[in-house]
Amino acid sequence: MMANSRGFASDNNSGIHPSVLQAITDANKGHCIGYGDDQYTNEALKKFREVFGEDVAVFLVCTGTGANVLALRAVTQSFHAIICALSSHLNTDECGAPENHTGCKVLAIKSDDGKIAPHQIEPLLHGRMDEHQSQPRVISISQPTEFGTVYSIEELKKLSSFAHSHDLLLHMDGARLSNAAASLGCSLRAVTGEAGIDLLSFGGTKNGMMMGEAVVFFNPQGTEYFKCIRKQGTHLVSKMRFLSSQFTAFFDNDLWLYNARHANSMAGLLAEELKGIPQVRITQKVQTNAVFLTMPSEIVQKLQKRHFFYIFDHTQGIARLMTSFDTTKDDIQRFIADLRGLLERLET
Amino acid sequence: MMANSRGFASDNNSGIHPSVLQAITDANKGHCIGYGDDQYTNEALKKFREVFGEDVAVFLVCTGTGANVLALRAVTQSFHAIICALSSHLNTDECGAPENHTGCKVLAIKSDDGKIAPHQIEPLLHGRMDEHQSQPRVISISQPTEFGTVYSIEELKKLSSFAHSHDLLLHMDGARLSNAAASLGCSLRAVTGEAGIDLLSFGGTKNGMMMGEAVVFFNPQGTEYFKCIRKQGTHLVSKMRFLSSQFTAFFDNDLWLYNARHANSMAGLLAEELKGIPQVRITQKVQTNAVFLTMPSEIVQKLQKRHFFYIFDHTQGIARLMTSFDTTKDDIQRFIADLRGLLERLET
Amino acid sequence: MMANSRGFASDNNSGIHPSVLQAITDANKGHCIGYGDDQYTNEALKKFREVFGEDVAVFLVCTGTGANVLALRAVTQSFHAIICALSSHLNTDECGAPENHTGCKVLAIKSDDGKIAPHQIEPLLHGRMDEHQSQPRVISISQPTEFGTVYSIEELKKLSSFAHSHDLLLHMDGARLSNAAASLGCSLRAVTGEAGIDLLSFGGTKNGMMMGEAVVFFNPQGTEYFKCIRKQGTHLVSKMRFLSSQFTAFFDNDLWLYNARHANSMAGLLAEELKGIPQVRITQKVQTNAVFLTMPSEIVQKLQKRHFFYIFDHTQGIARLMTSFDTTKDDIQRFIADLRGLLERLET
Amino acid sequence: MMANSRGFASDNNSGIHPSVLQAITDANKGHCIGYGDDQYTNEALKKFREVFGEDVAVFLVCTGTGANVLALRAVTQSFHAIICALSSHLNTDECGAPENHTGCKVLAIKSDDGKIAPHQIEPLLHGRMDEHQSQPRVISISQPTEFGTVYSIEELKKLSSFAHSHDLLLHMDGARLSNAAASLGCSLRAVTGEAGIDLLSFGGTKNGMMMGEAVVFFNPQGTEYFKCIRKQGTHLVSKMRFLSSQFTAFFDNDLWLYNARHANSMAGLLAEELKGIPQVRITQKVQTNAVFLTMPSEIVQKLQKRHFFYIFDHTQGIARLMTSFDTTKDDIQRFIADLRGLLERLET
Repeated sequence: MMANSRGFASDNNSGIHPSVLQAITDANKGHCIGYGDDQYTNEALKKFREVFGEDVAVFLVCTGTGANVLALRAVTQSFHAIICALSSHLNTDECGAPENHTGCKVLAIKSDDGKIAPHQIEPLLHGRMDEHQSQPRVISISQPTEFGTVYSIEELKKLSSFAHSHDLLLHMDGARLSNAAASLGCSLRAVTGEAGIDLLSFGGTKNGMMMGEAVVFFNPQGTEYFKCIRKQGTHLVSKMRFLSSQFTAFFDNDLWLYNARHANSMAGLLAEELKGIPQVRITQKVQTNAVFLTMPSEIVQKLQKRHFFYIFDHTQGIARLMTSFDTTKDDIQRFIADLRGLLERLET
Repeated sequence: MMANSRGFASDNNSGIHPSVLQAITDANKGHCIGYGDDQYTNEALKKFREVFGEDVAVFLVCTGTGANVLALRAVTQSFHAIICALSSHLNTDECGAPENHTGCKVLAIKSDDGKIAPHQIEPLLHGRMDEHQSQPRVISISQPTEFGTVYSIEELKKLSSFAHSHDLLLHMDGARLSNAAASLGCSLRAVTGEAGIDLLSFGGTKNGMMMGEAVVFFNPQGTEYFKCIRKQGTHLVSKMRFLSSQFTAFFDNDLWLYNARHANSMAGLLAEELKGIPQVRITQKVQTNAVFLTMPSEIVQKLQKRHFFYIFDHTQGIARLMTSFDTTKDDIQRFIADLRGLLERLET
Repeated sequence: MMANSRGFASDNNSGIHPSVLQAITDANKGHCIGYGDDQYTNEALKKFREVFGEDVAVFLVCTGTGANVLALRAVTQSFHAIICALSSHLNTDECGAPENHTGCKVLAIKSDDGKIAPHQIEPLLHGRMDEHQSQPRVISISQPTEFGTVYSIEELKKLSSFAHSHDLLLHMDGARLSNAAASLGCSLRAVTGEAGIDLLSFGGTKNGMMMGEAVVFFNPQGTEYFKCIRKQGTHLVSKMRFLSSQFTAFFDNDLWLYNARHANSMAGLLAEELKGIPQVRITQKVQTNAVFLTMPSEIVQKLQKRHFFYIFDHTQGIARLMTSFDTTKDDIQRFIADLRGLLERLET
Repeated sequence: MMANSRGFASDNNSGIHPSVLQAITDANKGHCIGYGDDQYTNEALKKFREVFGEDVAVFLVCTGTGANVLALRAVTQSFHAIICALSSHLNTDECGAPENHTGCKVLAIKSDDGKIAPHQIEPLLHGRMDEHQSQPRVISISQPTEFGTVYSIEELKKLSSFAHSHDLLLHMDGARLSNAAASLGCSLRAVTGEAGIDLLSFGGTKNGMMMGEAVVFFNPQGTEYFKCIRKQGTHLVSKMRFLSSQFTAFFDNDLWLYNARHANSMAGLLAEELKGIPQVRITQKVQTNAVFLTMPSEIVQKLQKRHFFYIFDHTQGIARLMTSFDTTKDDIQRFIADLRGLLERLET
């Protein structure tokens, strides 16, 4: 594997889309007031309102974990519980940051495809008003899930309506939300605010930005102090214009959609090709830019040497292949060819 | 004041130095493993070791507040106290982040020039081993201070030797450390590890980087879990190469020093010119890139309209002027001319 | 149900054993230095060392939740994970206090009888040194479990040896440890320090004390600052002598054992009687002072009106009956008679 | 000094008033539901409402530090600041518990007599809505102060009216509130809710109870979840009746007032006698049960051997003498005689 060769390890292994880098370069003129009171940030927030609705309150932060924990912290007290899927990034990939920063208990629900539904949440609500138990306050879902699967608008509405009728908020971890919207063929607003989402972690980093995540509140009431939460939460960037200008480029001409569609279609192509290989089994629906699969364990390390990817589940030998905005058809053809080659040599 | 015109509000109002932006562009090739296991980060960490010493443990983060609180958190328990100057960024400008993230009490010492000395710290140590009181554990100093003043190497050694003989650690908030080292005419290592500093928040953002701060431990022992603190602390960046490559450019050919010397010399020039104006009084030694001064209050707003700057202390009417790596002589001449013009009109 | 009538709701519904109340009365003489530097506390700590070993470090606190979270906090950092049974008090009955006070993630293992074993813990250790995941640091077990079941000495030794060989500590929630030791017929030391337990929450409240819990460290190294953790943790009692003197009475003449044996034998008697009733099914081994059972749901409320007890698991209709140091044979005979009576009326 | 001899070290060195101990004994009958749903607690809460007003929400806890931090936590977010006197228990004697449990910054105001006033608070409010600074939310005062001084009703009303007009809450640390009310000759209600106090930590321990503190909210709105804060805060006592019954006895027949008046009058007597001794200087107004004084340093240790008391301020050599509900005239006469004796021997 050559240095900087494209692989399938993660969409965050990709770089910066040229238009985003250009936007950083364009913003690099003279002086601007720091901490977000500048024209680039105003422009970016305007774009956010165009995309998500006039009433949203938006706050830019540096990392996805930062977006998740600050969003959740804004709407919880430490005696609350946060309900999510066992496989969620929130639960498994943030080194306990949600517990640490909110003080809340995380109640994780086992799920084969990463999605959770009202009937799984309901049993967790029995102890409400019993002071011995953490009080459920937020449902957090990932859209798409960490398995690349997508909640339909219908499913989201059922979840949000369930949440609201039980005095719960619905948070969406949208680190790859572009890919879900591209998959559903709907707007970012349709899959969030219009589907009843209350608060959103919106990610640009995995889809062509250098760095940039946002916390979006669909009901701005009570968010006037979120700026203090962000500052105390160590995510107030001084040269904010360089986060903001990235987002503006991300929304301009629907770059987010273009990139996401491309990544999704590359995953579709990859899955198509894999289906023709009998020793391979695809284990999750391919709805966005991830393909989960099993293959003979003997070839895994050899294949990883040529095309970097991760084994997602060591117990079951499930690999994850992720495409990104810059994956090419050629990348896929070479991967498939190498995979077929290794499998052939295995047989003989 | 035109859009993007250079002012004296803060060095973080400046943009990205061209060499740093070029380094981001150069790193934008193909795929790299995320979260820091890439060649750009290896290269940057190698530079850090060249600069600060072979034994340092270095961790890149996004913001200065992030660097401060994660560094302090790594070496404290919640029953500890952190000792610092009343005027320190830690105490006044981080929205209580140190208290919130470490759980510690912050014991702040009044200081006219932002510096603190052993004789001011000693009285705070009386309650050690008394469980009713927070236990002092770290002294945190800013180098340069928030007033632009600089601890001499001698003063640092006295502080560190005092600290270590009282079982305290010495932390340095080096958000503008380049400017202090340029002022002292010494290496970054001489003003930190060699002077007895135990842990450092090292900033690049205010001196020409887009974004990039680092936590540097001069004794790497026990820091193997700091990566968990950084991840849980929400500062593990996925596309790390774009922070790392900035730091490499920052250290290459002593760009940090070049930029800092320039900013310092512009502040020196500014002070020189101001000294010739009788209605102006400079209130702090000008040792780095900040000039604190009083001027007739009637002209402040008019002057701010042409050259953006902040009133630092409203009670005493003290203004702060900061220069940066891109301040020009012309900027200063125009400022002085406008200031003189306003003062003249005032007289008549 | 008459006011103050004895029921089977919980052993903490019982009052103060006369010897314990006498000890409080006896300690109520003149003045004593506050916060534990008094002869009553010295006496109690001496008793603790006689019982648990000369080397233990012991700290008295007010509540069981306090003992658990302060003990765990002393040995964790916020990026750690605490492993326990899903049914543990720590996980289900402390309103998220462990997460809130330690910042740690709680990893809960499903268990039918409340006990956990090395083979269930091992899969949780896969992510060690992976900064994205909380780092397992402590296994916390309840002895006896919340189902009244007891770990054998053999099982404890396997757990502690597993823990120590994986760089984990073993914490025991011993809110009812007296009952477990009485059940095993062994000393308190044999079931704790000698079995490899590293730290213990030891409860007296449920077994005849008015209020009194203790954190016991079997390795005193590094515990010199625990007094700060207790004070900051809001559990340093000023009139400490009235907690201490209770513990002295609790240990004197093995009152703890006498009380626990009695409660256990009453549960045994209850179980014996229940086994003779065909409509009743006992669902857990009766090893201490709890009996879990199912009964026809139609009679539950009627029976609760006469003898207070809780339904532990509403889904499966499992009731919990707890005996205590003051339960009498007569209490049990009346309960059984009332139960039989209700069942008979049900049939007809 | 004989074991258990009465001294002047602290009112918490005293024991349990006989009526309080009798109440514990009386409550020790049969079984009661745990955690506060019992008739003794109902009775105590009824007394609280009689004393403090029908609308108060009251929650019993174990320690004064617990009461303070849980009360403050209920009304703050971590980006808030808590304003108090430098000498307050909150600031100096709780091992940083307020910072740790609330995450807030504590802004401490220097005060010679322990009292703070609006003009000292106003300058701390300048940074409101500036996200870089902790946002002031609560003023916390001690009544009486740690110097034994008392806010007049007038002063309290000025403070509360200042607080409320600046969107701040007023918290009172009433660990010795009985003594302040006795001193002012007013009801507990007049010095709290009627004077505009929003939330109160009310202490009984220092005035004749064994253990018992309460958090009292004068506006019950929004306090329905405080029970979760208490539980998560580790202060939900299982055998609650034994805290509750103490409070009932404390309020019955105005025992609180009787005890406080006695302690205050003993301090008055002590001060009277001390004024006759030329080598002694009383340094604070004697308004409750504390006398602060200087005396020749040569006699301090000798006097402490006969009558235990603390040096409060080592720098200035200020001693604190505290009387309590059980101090006798004879105790004072013997103290004065010993003091005079030592002074005489000093002269010769």
